[in-house]
Amino acid sequence: MNKIVTFGEVLMRLSPPGYRKIQQSSQLDFYFGGTEMNVGASLSQFGLVVQHISTVSNDIVGEAALASLRQYGIDVSHIKKVNHPLGLYFMEVGASMRSSQIAYNRLQGSFAHISPDLVDWDAVLDGCTWLHWTGISPAISEGAYQTLKAGLQKAMAKGITITADPAYRSNLWQYGRNGHEVLAELIGLSTIFIGGVNEINEILKVDFTLDKEGFIAASQKLREVYPQITKVFDKVRTGLSASHQKIYGRAWVNNQYIETPEIEITDVADRIGTGDAYAAGLIYGLHNYNDQEALNFANAACGLKHTVLGDVNLVSVAEVLEVANGNVSGRLKR
Amino acid sequence: MNKIVTFGEVLMRLSPPGYRKIQQSSQLDFYFGGTEMNVGASLSQFGLVVQHISTVSNDIVGEAALASLRQYGIDVSHIKKVNHPLGLYFMEVGASMRSSQIAYNRLQGSFAHISPDLVDWDAVLDGCTWLHWTGISPAISEGAYQTLKAGLQKAMAKGITITADPAYRSNLWQYGRNGHEVLAELIGLSTIFIGGVNEINEILKVDFTLDKEGFIAASQKLREVYPQITKVFDKVRTGLSASHQKIYGRAWVNNQYIETPEIEITDVADRIGTGDAYAAGLIYGLHNYNDQEALNFANAACGLKHTVLGDVNLVSVAEVLEVANGNVSGRLKR
Amino acid sequence: MNKIVTFGEVLMRLSPPGYRKIQQSSQLDFYFGGTEMNVGASLSQFGLVVQHISTVSNDIVGEAALASLRQYGIDVSHIKKVNHPLGLYFMEVGASMRSSQIAYNRLQGSFAHISPDLVDWDAVLDGCTWLHWTGISPAISEGAYQTLKAGLQKAMAKGITITADPAYRSNLWQYGRNGHEVLAELIGLSTIFIGGVNEINEILKVDFTLDKEGFIAASQKLREVYPQITKVFDKVRTGLSASHQKIYGRAWVNNQYIETPEIEITDVADRIGTGDAYAAGLIYGLHNYNDQEALNFANAACGLKHTVLGDVNLVSVAEVLEVANGNVSGRLKR
Amino acid sequence: MNKIVTFGEVLMRLSPPGYRKIQQSSQLDFYFGGTEMNVGASLSQFGLVVQHISTVSNDIVGEAALASLRQYGIDVSHIKKVNHPLGLYFMEVGASMRSSQIAYNRLQGSFAHISPDLVDWDAVLDGCTWLHWTGISPAISEGAYQTLKAGLQKAMAKGITITADPAYRSNLWQYGRNGHEVLAELIGLSTIFIGGVNEINEILKVDFTLDKEGFIAASQKLREVYPQITKVFDKVRTGLSASHQKIYGRAWVNNQYIETPEIEITDVADRIGTGDAYAAGLIYGLHNYNDQEALNFANAACGLKHTVLGDVNLVSVAEVLEVANGNVSGRLKR
Amino acid sequence: MNKIVTFGEVLMRLSPPGYRKIQQSSQLDFYFGGTEMNVGASLSQFGLVVQHISTVSNDIVGEAALASLRQYGIDVSHIKKVNHPLGLYFMEVGASMRSSQIAYNRLQGSFAHISPDLVDWDAVLDGCTWLHWTGISPAISEGAYQTLKAGLQKAMAKGITITADPAYRSNLWQYGRNGHEVLAELIGLSTIFIGGVNEINEILKVDFTLDKEGFIAASQKLREVYPQITKVFDKVRTGLSASHQKIYGRAWVNNQYIETPEIEITDVADRIGTGDAYAAGLIYGLHNYNDQEALNFANAACGLKHTVLGDVNLVSVAEVLEVANGNVSGRLKR
Amino acid sequence: MNKIVTFGEVLMRLSPPGYRKIQQSSQLDFYFGGTEMNVGASLSQFGLVVQHISTVSNDIVGEAALASLRQYGIDVSHIKKVNHPLGLYFMEVGASMRSSQIAYNRLQGSFAHISPDLVDWDAVLDGCTWLHWTGISPAISEGAYQTLKAGLQKAMAKGITITADPAYRSNLWQYGRNGHEVLAELIGLSTIFIGGVNEINEILKVDFTLDKEGFIAASQKLREVYPQITKVFDKVRTGLSASHQKIYGRAWVNNQYIETPEIEITDVADRIGTGDAYAAGLIYGLHNYNDQEALNFANAACGLKHTVLGDVNLVSVAEVLEVANGNVSGRLKR
Repeated sequence: MNKIVTFGEVLMRLSPPGYRKIQQSSQLDFYFGGTEMNVGASLSQFGLVVQHISTVSNDIVGEAALASLRQYGIDVSHIKKVNHPLGLYFMEVGASMRSSQIAYNRLQGSFAHISPDLVDWDAVLDGCTWLHWTGISPAISEGAYQTLKAGLQKAMAKGITITADPAYRSNLWQYGRNGHEVLAELIGLSTIFIGGVNEINEILKVDFTLDKEGFIAASQKLREVYPQITKVFDKVRTGLSASHQKIYGRAWVNNQYIETPEIEITDVADRIGTGDAYAAGLIYGLHNYNDQEALNFANAACGLKHTVLGDVNLVSVAEVLEVANGNVSGRLKR
Repeated sequence: MNKIVTFGEVLMRLSPPGYRKIQQSSQLDFYFGGTEMNVGASLSQFGLVVQHISTVSNDIVGEAALASLRQYGIDVSHIKKVNHPLGLYFMEVGASMRSSQIAYNRLQGSFAHISPDLVDWDAVLDGCTWLHWTGISPAISEGAYQTLKAGLQKAMAKGITITADPAYRSNLWQYGRNGHEVLAELIGLSTIFIGGVNEINEILKVDFTLDKEGFIAASQKLREVYPQITKVFDKVRTGLSASHQKIYGRAWVNNQYIETPEIEITDVADRIGTGDAYAAGLIYGLHNYNDQEALNFANAACGLKHTVLGDVNLVSVAEVLEVANGNVSGRLKR
Repeated sequence: MNKIVTFGEVLMRLSPPGYRKIQQSSQLDFYFGGTEMNVGASLSQFGLVVQHISTVSNDIVGEAALASLRQYGIDVSHIKKVNHPLGLYFMEVGASMRSSQIAYNRLQGSFAHISPDLVDWDAVLDGCTWLHWTGISPAISEGAYQTLKAGLQKAMAKGITITADPAYRSNLWQYGRNGHEVLAELIGLSTIFIGGVNEINEILKVDFTLDKEGFIAASQKLREVYPQITKVFDKVRTGLSASHQKIYGRAWVNNQYIETPEIEITDVADRIGTGDAYAAGLIYGLHNYNDQEALNFANAACGLKHTVLGDVNLVSVAEVLEVANGNVSGRLKR
Repeated sequence: MNKIVTFGEVLMRLSPPGYRKIQQSSQLDFYFGGTEMNVGASLSQFGLVVQHISTVSNDIVGEAALASLRQYGIDVSHIKKVNHPLGLYFMEVGASMRSSQIAYNRLQGSFAHISPDLVDWDAVLDGCTWLHWTGISPAISEGAYQTLKAGLQKAMAKGITITADPAYRSNLWQYGRNGHEVLAELIGLSTIFIGGVNEINEILKVDFTLDKEGFIAASQKLREVYPQITKVFDKVRTGLSASHQKIYGRAWVNNQYIETPEIEITDVADRIGTGDAYAAGLIYGLHNYNDQEALNFANAACGLKHTVLGDVNLVSVAEVLEVANGNVSGRLKR
Repeated sequence: MNKIVTFGEVLMRLSPPGYRKIQQSSQLDFYFGGTEMNVGASLSQFGLVVQHISTVSNDIVGEAALASLRQYGIDVSHIKKVNHPLGLYFMEVGASMRSSQIAYNRLQGSFAHISPDLVDWDAVLDGCTWLHWTGISPAISEGAYQTLKAGLQKAMAKGITITADPAYRSNLWQYGRNGHEVLAELIGLSTIFIGGVNEINEILKVDFTLDKEGFIAASQKLREVYPQITKVFDKVRTGLSASHQKIYGRAWVNNQYIETPEIEITDVADRIGTGDAYAAGLIYGLHNYNDQEALNFANAACGLKHTVLGDVNLVSVAEVLEVANGNVSGRLKR
Repeated sequence: MNKIVTFGEVLMRLSPPGYRKIQQSSQLDFYFGGTEMNVGASLSQFGLVVQHISTVSNDIVGEAALASLRQYGIDVSHIKKVNHPLGLYFMEVGASMRSSQIAYNRLQGSFAHISPDLVDWDAVLDGCTWLHWTGISPAISEGAYQTLKAGLQKAMAKGITITADPAYRSNLWQYGRNGHEVLAELIGLSTIFIGGVNEINEILKVDFTLDKEGFIAASQKLREVYPQITKVFDKVRTGLSASHQKIYGRAWVNNQYIETPEIEITDVADRIGTGDAYAAGLIYGLHNYNDQEALNFANAACGLKHTVLGDVNLVSVAEVLEVANGNVSGRLKR
């Protein structure tokens, strides 16, 4: 077996239909997602074997969350039920110049109550060749942080590839720890870095510029501090409006800079999970292609996610390859 | 002014359409409700002046909750916004022999973080002639309990009529206090009791039977212990199935037993808020009719609520009177 | 050709989904209907050739109304477009003891502006063997009354069978004429009477009882006054609740009383149009069966309509016959 | 108190979902709106105290309309119920090169039946510092015109600021008066003019060009004729398609020309109410900022409304300021 | 492992919302189901390990079908994709006396093209202790028949328990074989019979009565002909209307007659899959309880399914036990 | 009479709402369409008399299909019901760079079972002046091919104008015939060719370029081979993304090249049926205008169809003319 393990919260996302506001609605659309499980679901969609580790509520919502994960083909056998409500958030979807707005209800939820004793990491890591985490999980609670650290330590010891997407979200981190310090520690337990100049600047307390030169310098600096990090992958987004975005990928691998062509997305259907789609594309690409191809695949996957509703990038490898190969005409497939 | 004040949590209720389960759905219907605000909204619908006291979240959900209260004509000027998510619950609606199931997410919500300093009771009680509370509020948190007690003490001092609906909900009361003791204390700060033998037995630690004789004895006992309680109103429900219910009201007033005819409700549309509809019917009735008529009005209001979706009894005084007068034919009104 | 002509308003019905009230909704379901076109649509569904005469609005609503009539297979070639909005009504659907409520917007609508010069009755009645009208149409406006009268006079002259369903609706008749007098005049231009003791009492200013004897006496009296009326068909409804009804048919034909077994409808899906379904069943029955069979068919059609949403009785002859023959088990048809 | 009063019709808007036509649908989305109440609702949303004056139907639709106004926080205590149906319109929403289409049903509605005796202007104007009207109201009926004129006269006498948005809608004005003459009269009872060269040309029967010079000349001419008008505010729209618009504001204030940068809106969600959003932005701006800032705020508010569904601009002051300050990236707000 | 294997078609069910007919709708609700997979999904819901064997279409519909099966926790690793469309059916849902109507599109679908070479029965039956089939599968196509027979032969050889639900559906069986003969053959490859007098009469060409005595005699006759059949389980339904049903279970086990109390279901939400719920309840019961308890469990599961939408009985063991123990009050579970 | 006859399959199209995938949905929107009936429906919408020839299923789906055709005003009196399910397809709608995906279920459907004995061409062609066919119909089955050929032969003999839209769809043609040969034969039975260089290249086995010169040369070649073809009309599409298209029309008529301005469509609402809208626009144009105007009308009709949901171009002649005259601003029509 060649199992990929993802670790993180499963959240319910609730949105009024279309561009409505909650007070204009009597119904809410919902999806289950979460940054790490989005990566897992996308990888499962691409055909890889994925197991997700989390805690969910011991009620009708938690059952529905598990059903959703199973639907994506994710192994949920190590997810535990706890007597706390599932984390969730409300989103009013913006358009054009109006931003989407989010209200979270997660800091006392079932994932916030995870703890190392609820995860049998030895069993989980058995057969695992790749572990993925993000900066969201350790920002939720002490238990989430300790559980993740325990897993990363065991995974490092086993030589498992570990992708870190250590985004720093300032409105989290309310349980007492310093987010930058925690992320700095956990990057030391990782082998591939998914992030850019902002993340490196924040974590290393440095101040590189956002351009290509800054990215290269920041990447080199990162590898100095964390020599076990072998590759640095970044994604550059230009937001013209809520409905119109441009993205390209860049990376520092083998002491070389590579980048992808820029993709333009008009008519954005859903912004959520586009970064996760990039990470999933990267992990799939690194399993199957060389670094440049993997980066192209990741950027194309990210682009396509903007056209898919929900948190999860429900596209096939063939669809991603077509975009990665430059066909963005969206021609009807009969 | 002749203002009625209600105090309690505003909750969002989320349900899959029809009899679906969450995992069968991609949308959830929602309503804002909460046992005390349901009473307030029904009274406002009946034409009385109502103010609700609570805390809501400082986000898009809290704004929508306030909009909903305003829609019902409730004065929200004393509701404060706090930085905690609004309480909510999920409900899968049962039918026939299948029970509805509920999953709560409220114990860390915005109402749980209310505290006496967030309510200016002097201003609130100015012009107030009636205050209504239930046993749900003090069960949520210490702050909710202290805030309610402060209000009741001031209201008693001002000679305001106070209706208590002190239902004991065992799955709440997780913050440390003994629910029975708290309720016993707060009933001492009330003048009308809405509850039956079960509530009296639990609070007074007695053991009366549920029949008419038991109800009379329990009521007498309650008035011995709480001489400031002038009236005791009860509601007796027979549940033939989730879709088929029977109800009648009974009361001990002026040392006399009175009761209503039984109403049968087939094709139940919504069980939630039927007790609140009874309380609102009672309060409206006691403002306008004699005790027997008030009880009939309350029972009819409760019956009609089974046919109304959402938490709030959106019926008019004329509709209630028609049922109270025995017309249950549901004939089309052109 | 053997064409049936119906004359009357096409209305849009707008209702919140399920048992919601308008203020609880953000969407309204809609149907096009109208008492006489409902009869026509049902007859077309049964396989007869039907033409409807009316005026509709000269806008996107009128176009949709015509599309709906065409969908039912009704010939709309003689319906004119006028520059007044289509009549419509809102309905909140009741359940159990709660009545449905209706708000009309029709008295200034496109049908109220019909006039004799907008209908070429000679062309319309060419090939027509049956004409159907109700008491609603002449209650709308002077123009509607004059247009109908002109058609009835021509139809009588041609020996066309004319069914009258002269229900008196007191909340209409706002344009100045006395409804009872108008109906009395128009019944003189009809050959079959669909109505009961109430209608006869109102129109003839008599006072028969509602029971069998009263019905027979009233029918005899009606035939005395209107000797050209050959048959009298009635429908008796017992409303246990908005969701639970009983109906049976009775008639005075060939100086004989006949009646049908009673049908019980639990779980009423839609009350609107049940009388129209009865009339359509009767007209179809009288085309194909003897009087007793026709009455049974009409009652069964009426019963089935309670289970069909919308104004129109979208059931087949086979479905009606099955119920008319006593099979009310509703067994699944694979 | 610092109350803003708006006067005008409350309309129900009914639209098929998305880009459907009515005949393709079985449901209609609905909103309550109306040009002046849209202004009021937006101002209430911005935190000001707003009272709306109107008449609504005395039925379930009128009740829902009042509930909707209350939801926006508008004081409805002076709105009367009359026995005429609420005005409404149907809209099929266009896209790209296809225009939206509207069918009105309002000229016999509840607002058309307003009359001076139904509004107690002395009570209404007590505490009022700002009154807003548009050219739609006097175009509906003689009663609406007389009621508005009575209010304007009293307001002028009290020195209340009066904003006029005297758009001339040629398909209204069917009750006999000459629209240009009426508007010319009512502008004489106003202090701020919201409108451009077209409106001035029509009302003064002049012929200025639409460019900057024409606007300045027209504004000067207007102030000559109406010296009590202190400020003239205009909005210039370029419609590239139903889904793609550009707007900027310009004004003649203190004998000076000012204008805003142009805002481009792709992916228009809803065109209705954008002019009202501009007016509301202006009124809010003039309460809080200097003229240039107010104009910028108005233009930004107008731009944002294109992204909000329904008639009312449900955005906050902070959202408007962000766009007014040039941030149109629509970046996700977590 | 203790795997249960089910074999059969996965169908998409498409229904207009509520009681609408297709021509009244613009949307269809859908579910994936199929008599044998319904049994599997219910067993998986009860906590057992289930694998389903089938073929699905190699397109977006087949993918969605697999996602649905995974959602229920069913192992789909042996389901093959073929280049034929997934079978489906349309259903218009009846109410009261109106029957539901079904239109099938399955006889040329992906399951009709299954063949023995598409199923690796040796691998499938490895670890399998229970195999379930119904009379629907061999009625679809020669390939379905041959594939099933191959599996049954191997399962018999391995001593696996085999439940047969050999309902004869006369509108299937269009590929040339005699259904009664095929079923007779396959019952010879089964160990438990789920069916009643009708099935036995049809297959054995006998003519027992439907009452208790007839059932006992028929069961004895069946065991004479098929001595390897150890138990016979039947379900007796009385359909009062499409919305109102009564059911009880009866069985012939250990040469003894047992039966359950009758359950009455008012307000039927969904008739489809109630027989499958019975079969699943029985299989679960036979794994965990004695025969009488298993029969009670099966009947309660069947009763509850009438209240669950979709094909699959999404209820828990606890919910079934409560009904099996006689609590049919449907009381709200907070 | 001046009847236009169209011949071809009626398909049901089923799509998840918005940009959802099937597995993210619990509902599907549906429309009835089909390339030739789309042409007919558009022509009927434009006011012409249209009859469609086809076979539909003898069930609730076929009935709904007929109701839909009648709704568009199409004469369905010659459509036969057969005992095979109606053809259908599922479509997941793409956006931006993501392609729409289609899964067909039609090759064993009711239209595939049409045969010459099911169409009375003599009756159908009585009063017919124009017959339209496409390359889809003969690709479905031998019966469809033979039925079409019989009709074309009779129509040619009667001198009826015959438009051929002989698109070659490679994923059809599974019943054994060579598609190119069949199309070549049937073009010999047609008088106007709607198609471009690709179609000519495929059918004549030539290899012209796609540019203007190639189109002219191909057209000339086509007219050499098929001298009875009098006109060749083509449509050139540039797909920038699934949401953004450009189109223009070109033609070879009277030995002259003509073309239209290019129309740009952003915010595409529905791609399906745009070619059919072009054909319908052309046929309408050729009935009413000169060739250049007809081509402009066709291109404008095609452009507008991108903004209309469903298969059918529900726009009026006035709307098309406005776009044909260069107004693409999509300005609101009050």
